[in-house]
Amino acid sequence: MAEALEDKDLEPMEPLPVGELDTPAVVVDLDVVEKNLHLGADYAARAGAALRPHCKTHKSPYFARRQLTLGATGICVAKVGEAETFAGAGFMDIFIPNTIVGAGKARRLRALVERGVRLAVGVDHIEQARGLSAAMSEIEIMIEVDTGSHRGGVPVATAVGLAKEASAFPGLRVRGVYAYEGYQYSATDRDALAIRTWEGERALVEVGKAVGAALGIDPVISAGSTPALAAGVPCYPGVTELRPGTYIFFDAAQAHAAETLEHCAAHVLATVVSRPAPDRAILDSGSKTLTADVRGTGVCATEGHGLVCDLGGRPYPGLVVTHLSEEHGIVEGPTVDQLQVGQKVFVLPNHICPVVNLFDEVFCARNGQVERVLPVAARGRPQ
Amino acid sequence: MAEALEDKDLEPMEPLPVGELDTPAVVVDLDVVEKNLHLGADYAARAGAALRPHCKTHKSPYFARRQLTLGATGICVAKVGEAETFAGAGFMDIFIPNTIVGAGKARRLRALVERGVRLAVGVDHIEQARGLSAAMSEIEIMIEVDTGSHRGGVPVATAVGLAKEASAFPGLRVRGVYAYEGYQYSATDRDALAIRTWEGERALVEVGKAVGAALGIDPVISAGSTPALAAGVPCYPGVTELRPGTYIFFDAAQAHAAETLEHCAAHVLATVVSRPAPDRAILDSGSKTLTADVRGTGVCATEGHGLVCDLGGRPYPGLVVTHLSEEHGIVEGPTVDQLQVGQKVFVLPNHICPVVNLFDEVFCARNGQVERVLPVAARGRPQ
Repeated sequence: MAEALEDKDLEPMEPLPVGELDTPAVVVDLDVVEKNLHLGADYAARAGAALRPHCKTHKSPYFARRQLTLGATGICVAKVGEAETFAGAGFMDIFIPNTIVGAGKARRLRALVERGVRLAVGVDHIEQARGLSAAMSEIEIMIEVDTGSHRGGVPVATAVGLAKEASAFPGLRVRGVYAYEGYQYSATDRDALAIRTWEGERALVEVGKAVGAALGIDPVISAGSTPALAAGVPCYPGVTELRPGTYIFFDAAQAHAAETLEHCAAHVLATVVSRPAPDRAILDSGSKTLTADVRGTGVCATEGHGLVCDLGGRPYPGLVVTHLSEEHGIVEGPTVDQLQVGQKVFVLPNHICPVVNLFDEVFCARNGQVERVLPVAARGRPQ
Repeated sequence: MAEALEDKDLEPMEPLPVGELDTPAVVVDLDVVEKNLHLGADYAARAGAALRPHCKTHKSPYFARRQLTLGATGICVAKVGEAETFAGAGFMDIFIPNTIVGAGKARRLRALVERGVRLAVGVDHIEQARGLSAAMSEIEIMIEVDTGSHRGGVPVATAVGLAKEASAFPGLRVRGVYAYEGYQYSATDRDALAIRTWEGERALVEVGKAVGAALGIDPVISAGSTPALAAGVPCYPGVTELRPGTYIFFDAAQAHAAETLEHCAAHVLATVVSRPAPDRAILDSGSKTLTADVRGTGVCATEGHGLVCDLGGRPYPGLVVTHLSEEHGIVEGPTVDQLQVGQKVFVLPNHICPVVNLFDEVFCARNGQVERVLPVAARGRPQ
């Protein structure tokens, strides 16, 4: 299935030097992607865990197929609409690590199950379980546990109770537990990242085992995001599934965790449109291109709104997008003299996932030559 | 032309209570829009200035037509691609207050001029003028002047020189001068906003007159953004054109400047998807819906990432989106107890323009009933 569909995603084009693309545009280096996909697959293999990549980063069946080919057991997406896009492209094993509320969305989940998709969704509150049960004849759920990120997730102490209560609703089957590891982004350094990750994952594994014992199931225990992978922090024994997303492209935050730029596969190609002052250059890429996202100050620290690099991905020393407005990026730094009006540069964004979400298509390149235009198939599916 | 095309933009629908829309979604109150459009028209009329609204906020020919009907003399857009969208919808007087660099874009500008669009673009560097002249047989340019925002713009002291130099290029005709008034967003209070705006606009008027005298033209002197309009700060005498954008919808920043929420015409409809802790609610709207934009700390201050309101636009006291990730908004505040799983709320975003840019369509409502679905026609035109 996967291989046969592959070519449909990619609009072939005459090879074109990256620098001849118009701007702003997202350029993805397929060779670096390939290395990153192997990095992720190897990380999961070392952990003895299944790899279920989060496709929110690329939003593209093309890349998801490559992830399956390299051993991923299924995919994650963030929204029902994204699940519909991937199911439409032939993906039959999808986990939405997000809580779904509302009769309309539950009906759409039901339609996915009825067409044969092996589907699971997150639950961290009994009302979500009630709504799913009311709309669906059967669906698998994963109990979201708050292991320290303090976003969603049921507290560790009440997770088993929620799992038991939810599993009593008709049609609901608990597959296991999962956690969002957002705390990784605020770890001060690699040691803190390792300690914090192990603390969180140990708690998740314990909760998962307790849920498994209470329900008589062999639970999936699902964790994993890119910072630990980037920093080489192994995951805690007993985690059975990993859900990294950003590892396919990396970005400025993940590069900081990795202490290298070699994994940075996606950049925004921008043009220097003005040099209004000796200490300032203006790019044609602002918050509608780079987003206003900033990351942590520790292991995933970012500086400003993106690093300015040449078209080989080599940074101009100290050159940073210091201010954004919607369509302007202000660049400052000691090497700003190297930027001339008309010149094209790569910007390494702080956070690549929402950047890809701003574009209808990305350009795929190898060795500086654009080979293909890839639609961002699951963009614009916020529901 | 404008009226005849109007209905093509709007997909009619059976009236639907706003609360029955799925989430996240952008909901625009057409009655409030109408009041705001009159507010802008009256503001410009009092100033004796032409109104040329910036369409980056709504990106929709439907709203732009209504602006023309109420007296606007033309429109602004941010990008060549947006100009193409609006020209395709019949708009024949377009100013792009942005500097355009690159042969490909210059050729597209030329095509717009050749189909009869009255077009002007910004210039703040001689290399932009050179590129435009090389590609085009004729185009009008507006000299961008830095009156204190320190984004783009030629310094006041060298603006006349640039205007003379640019006008010497074949095909280029200087129409006047303009400034971006981003400094308004950092004014500490209304008095500071008034003083800063008048300082900036006085400088612009003086430069504009000097350019006019040097070139023997009656210059357009173009200023204006929403904060001064929202705060009731009149513009400086001698400004001949105003380019506000956000005034059609307002947002949390502009409401702060206006000291009222009554102009807030656009909200993000969101669902409370979880209550993982007594002091925390989770919305299904994160940075891919609300953006991560924050505004000033003064007259345009925003708090967190959006104000949480009921479906009538009345805020829950003290309830704010305090943290965002891509698909989650964390809500905290003294009245968080009022939010239940499954409940829908309005979020008033900090900055509405990039929010609209994230959606393929917005829902138009009156008195709490959705009447129409409006495509965001110029979304996804970053080039």
